[in-house]
Amino acid sequence: MKILVLNSGSSSIKYQLIDMEDESVLAKGIVQRIGIDNSFLEHENNRRDEVKIEVDIPDHTTGIKLVIDALLNKEHGVLESMDEINAVGHRVVHGGEKFAESTLITEEVIKQIEEVSDLAPLHNPHNLTGIRVCAKLLPNKPQVAVFDTAFHQTMPRKAYMYALPYEYYEKYGIRRYGFHGTSHKYVAQRAAKLMGKPLEELKIITCHLGNGASIAAVDGGKSVDTSMGLTPLEGLVMGTRCGDIDPAIIPFIMTKEGLSMEEIDNIMNKKSGLYGVSGISNDSRDVEAAAKEGNQRAQTALEMFDYRVTKYIGAYMAAMAGVDAIVFTAGIGENQSRTREVIVNNLAFLNIHLNEEANKTRGKEIEISTSDSDVKVFVIPTNEELMIARDTQEIVAG
Amino acid sequence: MKILVLNSGSSSIKYQLIDMEDESVLAKGIVQRIGIDNSFLEHENNRRDEVKIEVDIPDHTTGIKLVIDALLNKEHGVLESMDEINAVGHRVVHGGEKFAESTLITEEVIKQIEEVSDLAPLHNPHNLTGIRVCAKLLPNKPQVAVFDTAFHQTMPRKAYMYALPYEYYEKYGIRRYGFHGTSHKYVAQRAAKLMGKPLEELKIITCHLGNGASIAAVDGGKSVDTSMGLTPLEGLVMGTRCGDIDPAIIPFIMTKEGLSMEEIDNIMNKKSGLYGVSGISNDSRDVEAAAKEGNQRAQTALEMFDYRVTKYIGAYMAAMAGVDAIVFTAGIGENQSRTREVIVNNLAFLNIHLNEEANKTRGKEIEISTSDSDVKVFVIPTNEELMIARDTQEIVAG
Repeated sequence: MKILVLNSGSSSIKYQLIDMEDESVLAKGIVQRIGIDNSFLEHENNRRDEVKIEVDIPDHTTGIKLVIDALLNKEHGVLESMDEINAVGHRVVHGGEKFAESTLITEEVIKQIEEVSDLAPLHNPHNLTGIRVCAKLLPNKPQVAVFDTAFHQTMPRKAYMYALPYEYYEKYGIRRYGFHGTSHKYVAQRAAKLMGKPLEELKIITCHLGNGASIAAVDGGKSVDTSMGLTPLEGLVMGTRCGDIDPAIIPFIMTKEGLSMEEIDNIMNKKSGLYGVSGISNDSRDVEAAAKEGNQRAQTALEMFDYRVTKYIGAYMAAMAGVDAIVFTAGIGENQSRTREVIVNNLAFLNIHLNEEANKTRGKEIEISTSDSDVKVFVIPTNEELMIARDTQEIVAG
Repeated sequence: MKILVLNSGSSSIKYQLIDMEDESVLAKGIVQRIGIDNSFLEHENNRRDEVKIEVDIPDHTTGIKLVIDALLNKEHGVLESMDEINAVGHRVVHGGEKFAESTLITEEVIKQIEEVSDLAPLHNPHNLTGIRVCAKLLPNKPQVAVFDTAFHQTMPRKAYMYALPYEYYEKYGIRRYGFHGTSHKYVAQRAAKLMGKPLEELKIITCHLGNGASIAAVDGGKSVDTSMGLTPLEGLVMGTRCGDIDPAIIPFIMTKEGLSMEEIDNIMNKKSGLYGVSGISNDSRDVEAAAKEGNQRAQTALEMFDYRVTKYIGAYMAAMAGVDAIVFTAGIGENQSRTREVIVNNLAFLNIHLNEEANKTRGKEIEISTSDSDVKVFVIPTNEELMIARDTQEIVAG
């Protein structure tokens, strides 16, 4: 079975074609700058051919047609005919409380995804565009929606409720949903495999540290808490997002600076985090480089990032009454050995110890704790596309 | 030395007259509903005489005059003459970054307190009114300001900075300040005394759980983190305050409900917390009673409260790389044995164990952990007035 995995954003479409026979990636790529100038497609196949096609891409339909063309292309393509594709798996950001699992897309499901779109107005509408375009271009192919929020639907009320007037939960669904669910689920499953133990018996803290970052408490394979909330703004210090702040700061800044709601939202999401504190960059590698050269604000930004992760690990250990494994994944988690070193060393008092040699590895599945560490620590590169493909296969196969 | 301790609010003045010879309370009371109808003074002396004087109290000057009259009264008073009062200690809520310690009040200090008043517009102006009235009514008496924020000024940057654009810190002083400092400091000192160990060698987590609630990490006698932030809104679930939420919720609710900044601020501060979730009361005793009768929302509110405290304890243990003692204080911390039981039992995995018999005690200084518990747990009734009096004495005595 071959599955096309799509992640449709406002101006981009990421894709992978996965052969479920051996779970190998046949081709992958990205359509960029849809509806903007200088749009293009970058495509790569499993023979390491890379092409960049610069062409006007006014809309998602044009974009997905380009993807199909690339997959069928005689030179850099990997398919003889579209009949070889058995199904399409779509990443959908927000499933609200309706979707605790991946689901076959029907008209009813599309309607339900629309209904929760005001919880993710920057994502769900574009995810839906991808779904609709595929329905037209690839009719009769089963399509599956895989939600970023679904894995976290197992959280108990004490973890997902905010201490706001209860009516906001009832009227608008204001609660913690959590995101990166597909990633947290994947790396938790991998950690159990690496430990040779049933996931059901393990308490795992998964740290998805990228430009967007979240952390989850996974107890017996189920998410019981996570740092992102109603939106992906809450929790950790991120590339450009502030994460946790005193909520009273918002009206305070709005008044002081005379900002509108759109403006403060933009500042918290796009001008804060590592970028806002350091004034250097949203990329932790740049911030790390500046800190090394003695930039104090860059140094503070890194310390805040590491400290917040450390505190969340402590909080989630208390939430689960223990922890068996800690996993680092995503851009920073997979590649920034300094970050992992600081965080794990902060936990030495719990007899959690770092294997410094192993920690030098980058972007590879590896245990980075010492053999006598009470808690296993892993680096596990995430693979959301594979998880989407697996869920799609499972649902299509019935 | 006899010290008058004043806590001046918008419509109330709390006071205590303390004899520093033996740190005993000679008299205490409260002026209520200043500038509103049905205003009154409640006064109690150390002979257990209690009086309630119902009289028009249009302003703070009238209120403080009433306090002085009560202290001098032939029947329920405790002083022959005002000369017996050596100094006045004032609670001041916000000291910004200017005040890391209590300070003798001068014109310059008053100006500095005014300068940080926009950080606590509901408190500092009234604290200042109390100071100004005392300067008039009790001229030549030294006056001392004791700040709620001062104890937390030892926090490191990684704990007090928010991941917002750095300019907001520079321009407006937007950072974590923390509150209840006098209380956290007092109970941390008492815990060290009870343990017979130098405070400098201890890691203590102090849980000030009242209608307002905060938690602090006290490492070597210094506050290194605390849950309240720029304002007392952040952190734990409180009587009517929401504590931590996804900041993106604020523009979301404002848009949905068409609320102004004042309205959302009011909702987060006055209509949320235990009250907002349970719909019953801001008083945890009422919420507990309702939960016992099967009210699901009341049950959820309590679970959220306990869970949030548990997570902060875990986070602060990670922040300090360990903990030697946990202290419960303030209304809920001193009196609600159920709350303490749930929280301490959540920590059993760390070999922290509750002495159930000792935990039945209410409002009394007591160790409530078992003798084999790895971490000592105490109930320590707070005494902010005594701390204010001690600081005042120390400063006046030079």
